[in-house]
Amino acid sequence: MFEWTVSARDGSARAGELVTPHGVLQTPVFAPVGTQATVKAITPAQLNELGAQLVLANTYHLFLRPGESLVAEMGGLHEFMQWPGPILTDSGGFQVFSLAGTRKIDADGVTFKSHIDGSMRRLTPEISVGIQEQLGADIIMAFDECAIPTDQAYAAEAMQRTHSWAIRSLGAKKRNDQALFGIVQGGIFRDLREESARFISTLGFQGFAIGGLSVGESKSDMYQTIEVVNAVLPEDKPRYLMGVGTPEDLIEGVLRGVDIFDCVLPTRLARHGAALTRFGRINLLNATFAHDPQPIDSDCQCYTCQHFSRAYLRHLINAKEMLAATLLSLHNLHSLLQTARELRAAIQSGQVQQYAETALNRLHSKNKPEVFL
Amino acid sequence: MFEWTVSARDGSARAGELVTPHGVLQTPVFAPVGTQATVKAITPAQLNELGAQLVLANTYHLFLRPGESLVAEMGGLHEFMQWPGPILTDSGGFQVFSLAGTRKIDADGVTFKSHIDGSMRRLTPEISVGIQEQLGADIIMAFDECAIPTDQAYAAEAMQRTHSWAIRSLGAKKRNDQALFGIVQGGIFRDLREESARFISTLGFQGFAIGGLSVGESKSDMYQTIEVVNAVLPEDKPRYLMGVGTPEDLIEGVLRGVDIFDCVLPTRLARHGAALTRFGRINLLNATFAHDPQPIDSDCQCYTCQHFSRAYLRHLINAKEMLAATLLSLHNLHSLLQTARELRAAIQSGQVQQYAETALNRLHSKNKPEVFL
Repeated sequence: MFEWTVSARDGSARAGELVTPHGVLQTPVFAPVGTQATVKAITPAQLNELGAQLVLANTYHLFLRPGESLVAEMGGLHEFMQWPGPILTDSGGFQVFSLAGTRKIDADGVTFKSHIDGSMRRLTPEISVGIQEQLGADIIMAFDECAIPTDQAYAAEAMQRTHSWAIRSLGAKKRNDQALFGIVQGGIFRDLREESARFISTLGFQGFAIGGLSVGESKSDMYQTIEVVNAVLPEDKPRYLMGVGTPEDLIEGVLRGVDIFDCVLPTRLARHGAALTRFGRINLLNATFAHDPQPIDSDCQCYTCQHFSRAYLRHLINAKEMLAATLLSLHNLHSLLQTARELRAAIQSGQVQQYAETALNRLHSKNKPEVFL
Repeated sequence: MFEWTVSARDGSARAGELVTPHGVLQTPVFAPVGTQATVKAITPAQLNELGAQLVLANTYHLFLRPGESLVAEMGGLHEFMQWPGPILTDSGGFQVFSLAGTRKIDADGVTFKSHIDGSMRRLTPEISVGIQEQLGADIIMAFDECAIPTDQAYAAEAMQRTHSWAIRSLGAKKRNDQALFGIVQGGIFRDLREESARFISTLGFQGFAIGGLSVGESKSDMYQTIEVVNAVLPEDKPRYLMGVGTPEDLIEGVLRGVDIFDCVLPTRLARHGAALTRFGRINLLNATFAHDPQPIDSDCQCYTCQHFSRAYLRHLINAKEMLAATLLSLHNLHSLLQTARELRAAIQSGQVQQYAETALNRLHSKNKPEVFL
């Protein structure tokens, strides 16, 4: 179980296969986020039609509601949310540390206030792993601390705690049918990131994640940090870049050796009326689309683009119709899933540099076709 | 076009086929409501999987937003909302007359305040038919006045206006690829309903609707009124009971010779967490369902019941997830569509009385199985 094969390489980019109890992940892979045990506004059947392989669910949210014991009682997350493929749960760390002012960190763990009922709750490495074992995802994450990436003293302190919690997370693990991934922290500081990657690499995790990125640092800091970390991480384990997911970041991450991604971006943008295209984002509420009979992106093969006009989508958004979120989520998720599939094919044919250059040039183009303005 | 065949009879109940430019309706038929050119929270692909045949859209809403000329510019309603099957639009009358206090009725039409931008707008029989011709549904409705059904003086006055507007609606019609249905009014008063049905029958409409029911009158008044009207309406035209749609009312209507139904009930209940079952409604937010691993209705073949537990649905509602509305809408729509299909089969096999008795006994049962309490 959890056998990891790199089946093709192109520069630092890898195409691989990760065997999980619920199917084989073909990487690079993008995971739609199902925070509360549902990818918002999308049925599992639709997710499946999109070709999604892996879904992420959030331990923090499910811990608070409906509670991990209910999920376990209902047969675990796969059964509960009816996603038969691989699932990954995070550790809850990221959400808890985002609750500035309402959480208290100590060496043992974190105490925080529930955003649902205001009750005081606690997460430690042992509690987090215990919850994730109850939820029953295929891939679970060590409990870590995500520091503000540009504050060096805090980044060092958070990294130390992350290391001690990594050991405790490993020690708490009981189930053999789940892979536990370790998380590298260290902000945007090369020394810290190298130290963290070296330390975490030695602990016997079944995969490695780069945490604490895409949280306010510059793009160049982010890409450099990925390079620094991946230069240290072992080649023979999968690498997961947490919470990252613009089309550009997917491409830049893959070029630097990342295998797994997740992000709320495609579904969150969808709920705000924005759509990803080959030429960047467009906001469908824009008046220029009011009479536009064209699909979001004429090159796109998704259900939304095969059927609906921008004028119709704009009408749905204007009229506050739920279908707007569904149709835009289908399109935006398709964009990222398709990009990951194309990256895999490009790696397999040794053309990932060309593919990336063409796609990035289009995304960053200053001479976009008028229809994408 | 619009050929109507009654292919089976069982008592007053009829099974028929209505040929429209976008397909043949097999009646009895229940039409999901797509008020703003979308059945809320459902894609056209999902509607098609449900076996929906006919969709209703509201002239009042589309007149105000996005406007009938935009819909026409985008190729008409079928193209705009990507529903390839038959569509029916109402006349806007019902919505306008529901705006008590903000609308002014005269002999020529109605002036009212838009609920969207507060602007003053006007509908007359000619304007309503003109809008409906722009929208391009297969079946369109005469502009009528829906009175409070229990106020006899007002019901008589509204009926007279409805009759004069029926003649004007017919006179305003230009397109040959749309069927125009006339509407019978008259509240709950036998004399008025008989007079109205006789008058409307003489005008050359391609089908007839019973308006002004399910708006506050008792069930027995409603059922009796249907009987009174259908005894007068010609056998050789389809009959449409407007805005009616509980499972009970569907059955009672079919027994009394109704062919077409529409109602927002299944999708509206869904958005409030309520589900239709063989044994009546259940509210999934009820704490008794918190740990319930069973589907809404173990006999139901819909996507929701084939996959999801009540516990999961309750979690989605609790967490205010959009998927709750989608999954419950799929189930509730399936319930009514399936009831219509079963009624058709029962009529064809001469067993509609038995079918109705069994179904109504179950719905009204005082000894429901515990799981449906």
